This record gives sequence, structure tokens and C-alpha cells, in this order.
Amino acid sequence: MKHPFPFSAIVGQDAMKRAMILTAIDPSIGGVLVFGDRGTGKSTAVRALAALLPPIKALKGCPVNAATAADSPGWAGVSGTTLHTIPTPVVDLPLGVSEDRVTGALDIEKALTKGEKAFQPGLLAQANRGYLYIDEVNLLEDHIVDLLLDVAQSGENVVEREGLSIRHPARFVLVGSGNPEEGELRPQLLDRFGLSVDVASPTDIAQRVEVIKRRDAYEREHESFMLRWRAEDGLLRDRIVAARTALDALETTEQSLIDVAELCVALGSDGLRGELTLLKAARAHAAFEGATALGRSHIRDTASLALRHRMRRDPLDEAGSDTRVARIVEDVLGA
Amino acid sequence: MKHPFPFSAIVGQDAMKRAMILTAIDPSIGGVLVFGDRGTGKSTAVRALAALLPPIKALKGCPVNAATAADSPGWAGVSGTTLHTIPTPVVDLPLGVSEDRVTGALDIEKALTKGEKAFQPGLLAQANRGYLYIDEVNLLEDHIVDLLLDVAQSGENVVEREGLSIRHPARFVLVGSGNPEEGELRPQLLDRFGLSVDVASPTDIAQRVEVIKRRDAYEREHESFMLRWRAEDGLLRDRIVAARTALDALETTEQSLIDVAELCVALGSDGLRGELTLLKAARAHAAFEGATALGRSHIRDTASLALRHRMRRDPLDEAGSDTRVARIVEDVLGA
Amino acid sequence: MKHPFPFSAIVGQDAMKRAMILTAIDPSIGGVLVFGDRGTGKSTAVRALAALLPPIKALKGCPVNAATAADSPGWAGVSGTTLHTIPTPVVDLPLGVSEDRVTGALDIEKALTKGEKAFQPGLLAQANRGYLYIDEVNLLEDHIVDLLLDVAQSGENVVEREGLSIRHPARFVLVGSGNPEEGELRPQLLDRFGLSVDVASPTDIAQRVEVIKRRDAYEREHESFMLRWRAEDGLLRDRIVAARTALDALETTEQSLIDVAELCVALGSDGLRGELTLLKAARAHAAFEGATALGRSHIRDTASLALRHRMRRDPLDEAGSDTRVARIVEDVLGA
Amino acid sequence: MKHPFPFSAIVGQDAMKRAMILTAIDPSIGGVLVFGDRGTGKSTAVRALAALLPPIKALKGCPVNAATAADSPGWAGVSGTTLHTIPTPVVDLPLGVSEDRVTGALDIEKALTKGEKAFQPGLLAQANRGYLYIDEVNLLEDHIVDLLLDVAQSGENVVEREGLSIRHPARFVLVGSGNPEEGELRPQLLDRFGLSVDVASPTDIAQRVEVIKRRDAYEREHESFMLRWRAEDGLLRDRIVAARTALDALETTEQSLIDVAELCVALGSDGLRGELTLLKAARAHAAFEGATALGRSHIRDTASLALRHRMRRDPLDEAGSDTRVARIVEDVLGA
Amino acid sequence: MKHPFPFSAIVGQDAMKRAMILTAIDPSIGGVLVFGDRGTGKSTAVRALAALLPPIKALKGCPVNAATAADSPGWAGVSGTTLHTIPTPVVDLPLGVSEDRVTGALDIEKALTKGEKAFQPGLLAQANRGYLYIDEVNLLEDHIVDLLLDVAQSGENVVEREGLSIRHPARFVLVGSGNPEEGELRPQLLDRFGLSVDVASPTDIAQRVEVIKRRDAYEREHESFMLRWRAEDGLLRDRIVAARTALDALETTEQSLIDVAELCVALGSDGLRGELTLLKAARAHAAFEGATALGRSHIRDTASLALRHRMRRDPLDEAGSDTRVARIVEDVLGA
Amino acid sequence: MKHPFPFSAIVGQDAMKRAMILTAIDPSIGGVLVFGDRGTGKSTAVRALAALLPPIKALKGCPVNAATAADSPGWAGVSGTTLHTIPTPVVDLPLGVSEDRVTGALDIEKALTKGEKAFQPGLLAQANRGYLYIDEVNLLEDHIVDLLLDVAQSGENVVEREGLSIRHPARFVLVGSGNPEEGELRPQLLDRFGLSVDVASPTDIAQRVEVIKRRDAYEREHESFMLRWRAEDGLLRDRIVAARTALDALETTEQSLIDVAELCVALGSDGLRGELTLLKAARAHAAFEGATALGRSHIRDTASLALRHRMRRDPLDEAGSDTRVARIVEDVLGA
Repeated sequence: MKHPFPFSAIVGQDAMKRAMILTAIDPSIGGVLVFGDRGTGKSTAVRALAALLPPIKALKGCPVNAATAADSPGWAGVSGTTLHTIPTPVVDLPLGVSEDRVTGALDIEKALTKGEKAFQPGLLAQANRGYLYIDEVNLLEDHIVDLLLDVAQSGENVVEREGLSIRHPARFVLVGSGNPEEGELRPQLLDRFGLSVDVASPTDIAQRVEVIKRRDAYEREHESFMLRWRAEDGLLRDRIVAARTALDALETTEQSLIDVAELCVALGSDGLRGELTLLKAARAHAAFEGATALGRSHIRDTASLALRHRMRRDPLDEAGSDTRVARIVEDVLGA
Repeated sequence: MKHPFPFSAIVGQDAMKRAMILTAIDPSIGGVLVFGDRGTGKSTAVRALAALLPPIKALKGCPVNAATAADSPGWAGVSGTTLHTIPTPVVDLPLGVSEDRVTGALDIEKALTKGEKAFQPGLLAQANRGYLYIDEVNLLEDHIVDLLLDVAQSGENVVEREGLSIRHPARFVLVGSGNPEEGELRPQLLDRFGLSVDVASPTDIAQRVEVIKRRDAYEREHESFMLRWRAEDGLLRDRIVAARTALDALETTEQSLIDVAELCVALGSDGLRGELTLLKAARAHAAFEGATALGRSHIRDTASLALRHRMRRDPLDEAGSDTRVARIVEDVLGA
Repeated sequence: MKHPFPFSAIVGQDAMKRAMILTAIDPSIGGVLVFGDRGTGKSTAVRALAALLPPIKALKGCPVNAATAADSPGWAGVSGTTLHTIPTPVVDLPLGVSEDRVTGALDIEKALTKGEKAFQPGLLAQANRGYLYIDEVNLLEDHIVDLLLDVAQSGENVVEREGLSIRHPARFVLVGSGNPEEGELRPQLLDRFGLSVDVASPTDIAQRVEVIKRRDAYEREHESFMLRWRAEDGLLRDRIVAARTALDALETTEQSLIDVAELCVALGSDGLRGELTLLKAARAHAAFEGATALGRSHIRDTASLALRHRMRRDPLDEAGSDTRVARIVEDVLGA
Repeated sequence: MKHPFPFSAIVGQDAMKRAMILTAIDPSIGGVLVFGDRGTGKSTAVRALAALLPPIKALKGCPVNAATAADSPGWAGVSGTTLHTIPTPVVDLPLGVSEDRVTGALDIEKALTKGEKAFQPGLLAQANRGYLYIDEVNLLEDHIVDLLLDVAQSGENVVEREGLSIRHPARFVLVGSGNPEEGELRPQLLDRFGLSVDVASPTDIAQRVEVIKRRDAYEREHESFMLRWRAEDGLLRDRIVAARTALDALETTEQSLIDVAELCVALGSDGLRGELTLLKAARAHAAFEGATALGRSHIRDTASLALRHRMRRDPLDEAGSDTRVARIVEDVLGA
Repeated sequence: MKHPFPFSAIVGQDAMKRAMILTAIDPSIGGVLVFGDRGTGKSTAVRALAALLPPIKALKGCPVNAATAADSPGWAGVSGTTLHTIPTPVVDLPLGVSEDRVTGALDIEKALTKGEKAFQPGLLAQANRGYLYIDEVNLLEDHIVDLLLDVAQSGENVVEREGLSIRHPARFVLVGSGNPEEGELRPQLLDRFGLSVDVASPTDIAQRVEVIKRRDAYEREHESFMLRWRAEDGLLRDRIVAARTALDALETTEQSLIDVAELCVALGSDGLRGELTLLKAARAHAAFEGATALGRSHIRDTASLALRHRMRRDPLDEAGSDTRVARIVEDVLGA
Repeated sequence: MKHPFPFSAIVGQDAMKRAMILTAIDPSIGGVLVFGDRGTGKSTAVRALAALLPPIKALKGCPVNAATAADSPGWAGVSGTTLHTIPTPVVDLPLGVSEDRVTGALDIEKALTKGEKAFQPGLLAQANRGYLYIDEVNLLEDHIVDLLLDVAQSGENVVEREGLSIRHPARFVLVGSGNPEEGELRPQLLDRFGLSVDVASPTDIAQRVEVIKRRDAYEREHESFMLRWRAEDGLLRDRIVAARTALDALETTEQSLIDVAELCVALGSDGLRGELTLLKAARAHAAFEGATALGRSHIRDTASLALRHRMRRDPLDEAGSDTRVARIVEDVLGA
């Protein structure tokens, strides 16, 4: 099997790449929703992100990758305390996945052979402390999307079926990709994603030729191509790790909170989830940029990522979401 | 896992908090329905309420938390009479819950291994003497909502399926939250909830900043934040317990009954459930306020909670429900 | 558990109470359909009726409460002839009941453990010689309603499924309650109910206050309240038993039959079920009133109960059903 | 259990009674469809017919009531040749019947206990050589109606499911009753019924009073009422048996065939099933009337029974089916 | 059981009879679709055809009636090479047939008792080298019709389900009958039938009387009637067998191919299936008529059978299909 | 069984044949979608292609036809390293295929007899390194089409169901045929097919006669016909093998990349999949034509195959897709 395409080798698509990096710095920002035409490299980017992320330390044998015995659920029966290093989990939700594989379910084999009611963990358990990726979120059945967003928000998977009553931590960043031609998502679902971006094919011929060249090299001169870009990915990974550490010490003024609140009121974003997300995204961005205090420019740069899918629609305003956010950001925070 | 956000630390949302407190004083008031935009903290409030409630004494090993052997159902086979102290049960209905886990069902394990037809209690049994919380009541399947309201009203869970014929007490306060954008509830269902409130995001910048600050402190300085607010929650809990005791001795005049009846007739609320609920809510409110007799002001203050979802709709009246109730209360009881 | 609310303590609602009493005197009148807004006490009345009815004598161990060995079905295998006294069965159809629990079904436990095909009786067997109550008949699945009405009319439950071929007596009075806002019943179903009544909330303040007072007393001073009204219920029960005995000796003239037939023709009730029902209802009413012969007034008083749901609709006549029946009764029988 | 209401005691409804008698004389006429308002005694008549029919001789132990070993299917394994006398089978299709009980199916008990694939015969086997009655044919699932009509016409039940490949004779008269308000039957289904009648409630007061009297007597003076009418039923049965014998010798002229064909062409009945049915019905009628040759009057009297449901609809002709048939019969055959 | 009605005794319906004879001479022509009103004898004709066909020689014990060991599928495990003579298989698809009985499926009995995964052949295996008849093709579920046509065209049944991976020859002529009032077939399905005919009831009185006479004789004087017509059927069978032999030697000129191609282009039949079918049908027709070379008249006579269901619809042309084909045939080939 | 019709003997249909040859040279081009009227030989062409392809070397016993032990999945348990030569797999998706047979599923036999959870590979495993053919892609259920395209693109089959968590390589060329009359495919699905062609029946009489002659010879003089054309197929196969080798050494200039990118932008094809596919198709075409460098003519010749199904629809442009592509190719690359 080939290695995934390197994250750094993706041509353009800066907003999408930035959104993914921010959630890698602070996973509590919530999921990322990537909407765009077919063939714009959405899936490629997510699979590339997986290879970029720093490894984690987890309890050996723990089905939810817990770092401490206290976080490992009782039913898993993990007794030792040996830690091992594993890649950040990036779980891929295949089309046609059944609900029992997502949430986990009764272990039929144990039920049949030993007559006991054991729990077999599902993809939500595997994804704990990592990413869960849904390609074509539009094609997934509604009840599974609801379930995923519910768990993504609460950070806990609760299973009440087939006579089982199980709960375990399931904290992960949900990354969904979709195609607007195949229908929109309900506003309730949109709101549950932390950040969102639109992607489009480049229209610049030189950029398109560059894309073809890199894909062609990736396919036909795989080893040398990977060698060149793996170094770039390493530098990026180091910067993410540094930003995680810097985040806690980052200074946040009262004015920044007011900026954030005024921006959300001006944009008409319902509820308070927008404020909290923008605050976190702006801080992660500041940390990534190496700043020691949260500045207005950090809020300005991340406003669209955090708020564009939370604005009330304005049927009289034909401008795209990004343009509208930019205009209001200028009004509220100045250019 | 973090402790739930403290009830007292919730900024604003007075009607919602009051409705929850009243059902904690007199659970026979019936359920609470909280309707509002996404992100207004509905779920947070319910989970906070759970941590606020006083503990109860229950028979050890009893699947329905019964306080006496007489209340413990025969099929449970509880022989001892030892009581233990447990938190007031607050049962959370997860999305995708199956009907058998709600009502209880045949214990498959016992059926397969011992060939006997035993009953495995469900969430309705667990919720007895406590709360049952449904987040996004709109997303729950209709037949499960019907079933829950039916049990909530009768106080008894009757299971007639898979060859079982079981009944057990299931007295609980049903708390439902929903989003009006995802569709309205049928009038029949509305009527079965004792109280209802609408919640909205604050539009005041200072208040929004306060919300962000508290959430941020809750997430980043968890221990110290909890310490500060747990004391507040304790005071509130004491006041609820005192109101419970005071309730029985509270005086109710004939005139109060007439006030209540005239109000319901004027508001055009069908049936008599509105009257009974308003009477109970007003009395719980009076007890909470430390009054010794039910006064007109107590009726006036709780009228909207108890009646707003029971008025006939008036297509010519564009005022919101709360405004219409207030106007009629003024007409009937004076300002 | 509390005792049900006493039948005699129900304020007003005379037509509903009368309809129930008549079926208690002569069960062959057929079922009662109670239609009305939410909160008008429909369920309360049915549960109250159950406590009012005189006990019956039944064969010990007989799953259909048969009074003689000849009436006990062969498959039940009842060999003894000891009778015991049991309350008149009032079976409650819970929401979400499965068809196999209604009709009875293959006894899975026996099938699995002994490999034999035995029948496990259902709710229709339990209801034999008593009442079957469906709250919210509108919410029940159509195929179960059809099935219930079919059995209610034939007095026999025939099960042909899962390789079983079973029949047993299932004579009961079907009581259904429903809410007209949740949709009408098909005319075919309406016709199968013997009597029907509409109920509404009282609009008189004094009466509403009385209702609240009695409900409040029932909940808060349960024992003393029950003591006071149980005596009233006893007197009513005696009068029902006396009327049952008097019924056979009640004289019926040719003119009464002509009155009944002319009334039905004038009202345009299809079929002949209306005539037979009205005749029986009028006679039960006469017996209850202590008359020795069926008089015109008895027909007049029960005409609406028996015929209101069987009239052809007249789109030009805006009067309610009761008014139209009254007007035609006056035309045909005189005021 | 009470005896069924006597066939002879049915007041009026001559066409319905005649149609049933004709199929009792010549079952190859095909089924009878009785359409009419609720409460017109359709079900009563069919159940009465069952008690009227002469008994048959059948092979002991044969699941399809065969008269000879040659007609008994091989899988039934009937080895003896003893005949016994049984009532003409009248099988009642209960609402909610499952397809496996209609056609027969794998015998689950034998499959589980002995591991062999035996066939358990269904209602179609029981109905062989008799009647199959469907009350409310409109409420039956389409695929079961199709199946019944298919078998009724071919006279054979072919089961190809669950690994079974079984066939057995299933010759019966199908009697269906329905209510036109609950929707019409597809023309294809109508055509498969040999005869059809509409029934309506009498509008004559005296006749209605007579109906009530007889029903009342049947219910309250059961034994004496049955005694009186059972004798009438006996006379009718003798006449049916005599007509069966006379049928073979009945003379049929070429002109009768031409009459029948011209009538069908004039009425625009599609296909040739109308002609054959009318010929058979007219001959059975002639035999019942004691004639030795088929006459024009016999054709005239049965034309409506056999053809009314086979005419093309004429949207400009508001006359009922019976009137239109009568008019054309007069045109073609003379008054 | 009675013998089927003789093919030769069918009055009129020449096109239908001819279409069936042609497929008996050359089964590779493909299926026949018979569309017509109810009661026009479609089913009778197919069942009659079965009795007319010459017997075939098949390997003893082979589930697909193979003539040689090479054609018998490996899974059938037929080791011997003894041939026996069996009637041409005519398999009847009963209503309500399940997909597993059509295609064959896992042999449940063997799976349960021996724990092995054996294949139990279905109706498609039985029909190999013969006919498969679907009465009321409109009532069959779509997915089964698709499946049948797919197999009919490929001549092979491929089963990929329940862990089985089986294939066996399934070459048969598919005969479908349907009623246009119950809806049309999709063009794709129409195209897959080789030939099609419309049938209608005769309107000539003499012909109708003849039909009644023959049906009556068939039912009431069965043995003598069969004797008379069986001889006619024998002559027809001999002629079919002779035509089969003559077919290979039949001369076909280049001009005939051009005629056929020009006709199809003129009629606007999509694809090339029409040409091949018409060529085969015309040749079979020529052989049946005793010709030694394919002539223009043979093409002219069979054009409608092969092409009428393949023309593009012309909404402005109200003439029936047969008339339109005839008109174009005259244009292209001369009268 | 007959041999499939030879690929070389197909009359006309050059685009379809060329598209298939290109994917045989470079399978990474992706699938081919063939759309056209019924009867245009789509299925024949695919089955002919199967017989034309060069054989491959695969590990003995490997369920996914892997060439090396590293590519053989662990669960398959293949220990040896012996290679054998097998035909290029061409797997046919039968109508009515179940999802478990496509993806593979739990091996029920092993589960029942040994109590172990083994994986039984499905059609996707069989198709690895070959072709997967779907006749009538329109009739296949949506969720199976989604699944196939998903696997076709990722080259890996991921099964997460019934407690299994399996993955194996599944690299194949997907060939779909469909009929535009039965509905269009979603744009998302179209885009996932590498190349597409429309086919139509020839309108030239001589060509149609040639088709009939060859089909007739194929059916009636099978052996001699195959002999003549098998030689032609052999030459074609050699040319394909030579082109595969030449492909790697083929020179591609910067200008070619620019040509390809400009063409795609001019045609308005969304995403970048069009560019990559066109580049690969043009190179395979150049290699097949024996060129040593990719020239403008190669891009011009394959532009329609790769881009026609990816253009934005232009409702004002009535020209067909091929014409529009040709016009724009001329604009961009010159005539």
C-alpha cells in the first residue's frame, strides 16, 4: 500500500489546512466540516492529516486508548499500567457501516460460545483521543449522523441496547466532508461542527498544472516524492506540538472577550457556541503563530472558520458566507 | 470526567431555572418542556439540576429505587429491608435508544442460559422517583415519546410483550428539550408536560461575556471554579428541601381556586389539567418564597409557566405566548 | 398505589357516566366510545368504572374466566370445577402493545424448553366477561383496532398463526377514548361501538372549582376522601345489580319497536345495528330507572347515546350531533 | 356458544340468499361477492349458510377432506380408505391471518424436534370441497386476496417457499363481503367472483320491526326460536340436494347459448367468463325451480347476479347496475 | 385432476397460438408476452401448450434436465449417464413465490441436520430446456421480473447469496400473460420478450357460442371431448417436430437480411434485438409452413409478432400497433 | 457453453472498444461507463473484453489474487508462495446480489459449526486485479453503487459489520452499462467513472446486415466463426501488452500538462479528476498507437472519452456532449 499523500504537498487550500491544524492544537474546538465540489481533494487532505499528527501514549490493551487506568472503562478489564506509543487514531467511517459497529454492541461470539453478555467496542471507542472521519457526510444515514454529533459533543458513548448498559469516553475531532450538490445539512448539525470551510478547484492554470505534476510524481515516483515532503511534514508537526504547549500560557484580555461577543451578535449567530469556538480557534491560531497574547488579528483571521456556518441566512444578500463575515468583521473590529 | 456545570453558575435563564426548581419541590406538577434555539444551554441546565437535587433513601437492590418493600415489585425479588442513600436518579435518554431498553424487556441472557422468562428492567425503572431527560425530544421516535408521556402520567410502566406481563411504579419528572426550528410538538403532547419555558440567547454583550468567562473558567480552572459555586448550589438545595416541608401546611383559600379557574377559562385552555398544574406550581412557588399562604402574586408569577403551552392559538394575535398570558393575567387578577 | 378516583365523585359528565352504567347492566349493548378534548377526565372515568363493577364467579385456573367447564376452552386443560370470586376484569391496552400479546401466541418458553406448541393466552382472554379499555384509540395501529372490533362483535378470538389454530370466547365491552383533534375514526369502526358520547370541560367556574377541590382532596387527603365516596359507589353498584335482574321481566310493546325503527329511518342510520342497540340501551335505562315497562321516555333519553355516531352527515346542517338527534326525536316521538 | 342464526329466518335479502343457494347447487359457478352497507346482515347470512349445507363424505385423516384415495395428496400419507361424514367445510378467514396459515407452510414443530421438512396444511386445505368466507374483503392485504382468487380459480394450492414444493386440491366457493364505502375492488378481482349482489337495509318499517323481533327472539328465547326455524332450513336443504341431482339431466338448447352470448355482448362484459357463469347459474336456478329444461326466464332471473359486476362502466348512465342489466335483458330477451 | 384443455380446441386466437408454436420450433426466439383483457383464455392457452410439446431426453437425477453429463452442473453430483424421457418442462410461477424458490437457495434441511452448505435448486433449474409461465406478470414483484428476464436472456442462473456461489444452465422460453388495465410493462422489459400478441374476446356470436359449447363439453363430457381433440394435438405436434428438423436446412438470402434490417429501421425499433428475433421467427414460420427457403411472405407474416412491442410510440398516430406495423410492412416490402 | 462473442468481431462501436482497450493498458484510468439504448451490444462487448485480456500470475489459494505474499491479507492465511497463471478476473455482478456477497461477510458455516468468526470473501475480493462488470447500473440499489464506487476509488475493501473488522485490496476496473431511458446517474457517480461513452444502433443498412450475419454465424456455425476471429483477438492482445510496457517510457512535456489543464478549465469540469484521467488516457492512447512521446493529437482523440461526463450542463446548448467537447477542443488546441 502506498503512503498517504503528504499534507504539506497539497497545493493551495489554505483555509482547509489551517482549520485542520487548529483542531490538532486544541481538539476541544470541535469538528471540521469541509464542503466542496467533487475532486477538490477533501479526502486526500484528511488522510494526509492522519500521517501528520504526533503520536500519543496509551494504556496497553485499553480499547479506548486511555492514558490512565482511571480513564479506562471498567468493562474493558485492563489491569496493567504499561503505556505504549501509538499513532493518533484516525478512524475512517466506511459507507454502509452498521450502527452496532459505530457504537459497539453485544459480542455475539462470546454470547454464543460462553453464554455471557460482553460488550464489543466499536469505532467510537477506537476514535477516542483522535479523529473520526466521515467522507460524504450527506450519504450517511441521519440517525448515525445524529448519534455521532451527540457523542462528539458529550465526549461519551452511551449504549443502551440488546440488554447492555455501557458507557465509555469517546472524545474525538469529527471531520466531515460533503458535496453541496448532494443537499445541505440541517442547521442543527452545522452548529455542532466547530469550524467549517468551503473548498473549490483552483482556476489558475499554473496551479492546476502544479497539482497534476505532484499527483503524477506521487503515483509514478512514489519513494523519492515522499522523501522530499516528509521533511516538510515533520517541521509542521513540531510547530503544532509547540503551539499546544504555548496555549495554556497565552494571555486573553477582557477586550478580546468583548470583541468576540460583539462579532457574534453582529453576525446573528444563534446561541453561544459560536463565541466559545471562536475564542478557542483564535487562541490556537495565536499559539501557532508564536504570539504570547491573543490579539485582534487572531480573532479576525479565524472569524470566518468559526462563524460562517452559524450566521442567519439573509435572502437579500447574495454575497457568499466568507464575504459577509469579512464585511462584518471589518465593521466591528476595523480593517 | 468533569463535574457538571453548577446550576447556580448559569447566567440568566430565570424562567427555566424556576420551572426546574418548582418540579424539584413538588414532582407531581409534571414534566418541564424547554424549547429554544441551539446553544442556549438547555442541556447544561438539566445536567446541572441533577447535581443539585437532594439524595433519596431507597431499598438496597430494588431496581425501581423503592423506599418500602410494598412499593418494590414482586418480580424484583427484593427480600431485605436495608435502605441506602442514593442521588436522586436523573436518567438520560440517549439517541438511538431502543424501546426494550426504555420499558425493560425479556432478559435474553437468562432466557438463553437458564431457559427462564425473567424481566430485565429498563430506563423507566431506573428513573422511578427521579428525573428522565430527553434531549432533542423532536428527534425521538413518536411511539417512544407517546410511551414516555403515557407512563409519566400514569406513574406505572406496563409491559405486555414477548410473553411478559409486567408492571412496576415509574414516577418521574420528564424533562424534554427541543428546538422549535426542528418542528413543533403535537398539542396532545404539549398538554402532558406540566410546565414549559422558552429560552433564548442573551443579547446583552456584558452578559454574553460573563457566560464565556464562566464556561472558560469551568473548562480551564475546573477545581477552583467548582469550589466557588458548589456552595451556592448547597444553599439552593436547602431552600428546596425547606419548601417541600412547608408545602403541606400552606393555606389555600377558595378565592385562589376561583382565580385559577377564571384564568384558565379566560385563556381558553382546554381541559382541567391547566388548573391543577397552575395550582400546584403556584403553591410550590409560594413555599419556595417562604410564604405561609397562597397569594395572588404566586398565581400571577407562575401562570405563564403552567399555561403558555395550553392556550388556543390565536392567528390574529401576533404577540408571543408569554405576552398574551401576561395580558390576560392582568385582566383577570389585576396588575 | 392509590385507589382509583371514585366513579360517583366525578363532577358532571352525565352522558358518559350513564353510557357506562348501561353497558354494565347489559354488556350485549356493545362498546362505548368517549370522544373529547384532552384533560376532560375520560381515562379517569374508565378506571373509576372498573372499581364500581360487581365481582364475578369464575372457574379457578381458567385463562378466560369461564363460569362453567363447558365455556372453558379445551386447550386450557382446566379439569377442576371450583369457582372463585374475582373482580370484573378490566383490561387496559397499553400503548405499544404487540399483536401477539393481544390475541395470544405461541408460548415461546414451552416451545424452547419442551419443544411443544402450546398457546399462551393474551389480553383478549383476560378480558373475557369484562371490559377492554383503549386509551387514545386514535394512536393504536389500525390492524389492532380492526382485530379488536372484530373480536368484540363475534365474541370469539380466533388465532391462525405460527402454526396455531386456536379459538376461545372473548366477550367483553370495549371502551375507547379518543381526541377528535387527532383525527376521526372510520365510519365502519364508529358503527361497531354500541354507544358514543362527547365530553367537554365545564365552562361554569363553580363546577371547575369543585373539580379542582375534589382532585386536590383525592391527592392530599386520600383516605378520608375515598371513605366518603366509596359509600356512594356502593349504592350505585347495588342499583346496577338490581337493574340486571329486572331487565328480563321488562315489558316491551310493539309500539316501542315501531318507535325505534321510525327513529332510525328518520335519522338515516345505515343498517340495523342502530335499532337493536337503541332497543337494548333503552331497556337497560328503563330497568335502571326502576320501570317495569319500556316507555317512550326511555327511548327518547337514550336515542342520542345509541344513534349520534350512526347518522349520515349533513353538510348543510351545522348543528352538533346531539342537537340533530334531539330535534328528530321530537319530530318522531313528540317532545 | 349459540347456534348460528337460521338461514330461513333472514328477512328479505332475496338476491343474496338466492346467490348462495345457487353456489350450493353448483359450486363450479364460482364465488359470491356481497357488497353492502354496514349492518345489513352479510356476515349473518354466510354463517347461516354454513349450517344449512348438506354434509359430505370424506376420507378419515385426510387434511383436504378428499372423498377418494386418488384425490388425497401423497404428502398427507393417508393409507386407509374409511370414509366419515362431516359438515360441508365453511372456513372463516380471521383478520390478521398470516400467509403461512392460508397456504400452509413448513411444520416448524417437526422441523425443530425431528429435523424433517414436513408440510403443515393451512386454511386452503381445510376449505377443500366447501366454502371459504372473507369478511371485509377490503381489509385483507392485497397479496392474500390475489392468492385466494388464484387458488379459487385453479382449484389447486401450489406452495413454493421455505424449500417446500407442495400442491394439493383446493376447490371451494369463495364468499366475500365488503363495504363499498371502504373502497372498490379492482375489476380483475371482481371478474373472478362468479356472482355478486348488493344488499341494503330495508326501508319499510314493518320489515325492520320484523327483523328486530326475530333478532331479539334469537337472543332472548334462543332454543324455541331455533326449533321453529330449523325445520324451514331442513326443507330448503332437501330442495338443494334435489336440484343437484336434477342438474345433469337438465336440457339446454342452442337458443339458450345464443341468448346468453347476445346478452353478454350487449352488456359489454369483457372476456367469456360471464357467459359460462350465467349459463351455470341459470341452470342451477332452473333445477332449483324444478324445471326440466333451461328456459329464457331462468336466464333472465339470474342475469343480474352473474353479470352486474362485469359490465363496462358508463359514466353517463346514472342508473344502478341492477337497473341497467334489467333494461338490457328486456331489450335482448324481451320483457 | 382433469387434463388441460386441448390446444387445438381453442377457438380463434390465431396470433397467440402461432407465436407459441414458433417458440416451440426455435426456443432461441425468446419469450412470448400475451396481453389482453381478463377472460380471454390466456392461461388456458399456455397450459394447453404444455400438453402439446414433444417430450425430451434427460439425464436421470439431473436437477436441470441436462441431456449430457457435460451440461449437468458439478454441484448436482450426477454420476450416471442413463437418459430417460420426460415431458418438456412447463414450470408455473405461483403468486407469492419467494425469490429463494425461483433461484434456488441454501438447503436449510441439510444445513441444520448435517451442517453443510448445499444448494437446493429452484424453479429456474426445473424450467431448463422448457417453458416458464408467469400468469399476471404485472402482479409479480419487479425484482423477480428483472431476475427472470436476466436469466432468460443469459441462459444461466447465477446465485450469489447466503454464502453460496452457484451457477447452472437455465435456458427456457418465458411466457408471460398480463392485463393492460393493470398497467404497462417498462420498455426494457418488453424488449426482452421475443414475441408479443394482444388477445381480445371474439365479438361474433357464433364464435362465442362455439367457445361456450366446447368449454361446457370439456367440463361435462370430459373423456369423449379429450379423445376427439387429442388426435388434432398429435398432428400439430408432428408438424412442430418436422419444422425443427427443416429449420437448419432452410435457405436464407442476402435480400432477406436486407428486408429485415430495412423493416426495423423503418419501424424505428431501437437496438438490434428486433432484427435477430424477426429473422428467427420468420424462419421458424417458413419451416412450419413447409417452405425450403425463407420468403418475403414469411417475414411479412411474422413482422407484427416480433416488432409490435419494439416500435417507438407515436403520440399522433392513434392506430393500434398491429395496424402500424402492417402499414409499414406494406411500404417497405410491398403488399 | 458457448465461447463469448469475439471482441474484434464487434461491428463499429469504435469509441466503446477504444475506451475498454485504454483501461486494459492502464487500469488506474478508472472505470468505464457505457450508456446506450437497449440492444446495442453493451453486454456483449464487456463479456468479449474478458476473453481478450492477458492472463495474470497470482499466489495459489489467495482469495484476492495477490501476486506477492505482502499483498495477500493476513486473515486469508496463505502461507505458500507458489504462483499460478489465471485469466484476468472479470466478475459479473448478478441482479439481486446481496450486499454481503459483494463485500464479503461472516462465514456462517464456520460460525455455526466451529463457533469462530471467520471472514468469507465476496465479489470485491474476486475482482481484485481485474474487472467488475455491472449490467444495468440503474437497476442496482443505490447503496451498493455507492459502495462499489467507493471501493473502486480507494482500492481497498473495508468491512465493519457483524462484529468483523476486515480490510483487503480491491483494485479493479469498474465497467457499468446503463440505459438513459431508465434514468440518469447522479453527477457524483458519473465523476467517479474514468471514461464514458454513448453507444447507439447503426442506422446504415449494410452495417446492420453485417451485424446480423456475424451474430447468425456465431450462433449457427460457432466453431468456424470463433476460429476466424480468435486470431484477430490475439493480435489485439499483443498490442495491449506492448503498450503497457511502452507506457513508462513515454515522454510527457510541460506543454501537454498545460493543454490538459486549459481544456478542463474551458470545459468547466469541476475538480481535478478530469485532468488526471485525461492525462492517463491520452498517454495510454499514445502508447497503443506506438508513439514515444505524448502529442496533442493523443489528447485531442481521448478528450471526449475522459471529459464528456464531467462538463457542466448548458441548457441553452442543444448539441450533444461529444459535439460540445469537440468544439472546445478545437478552440483550445486547434483543429
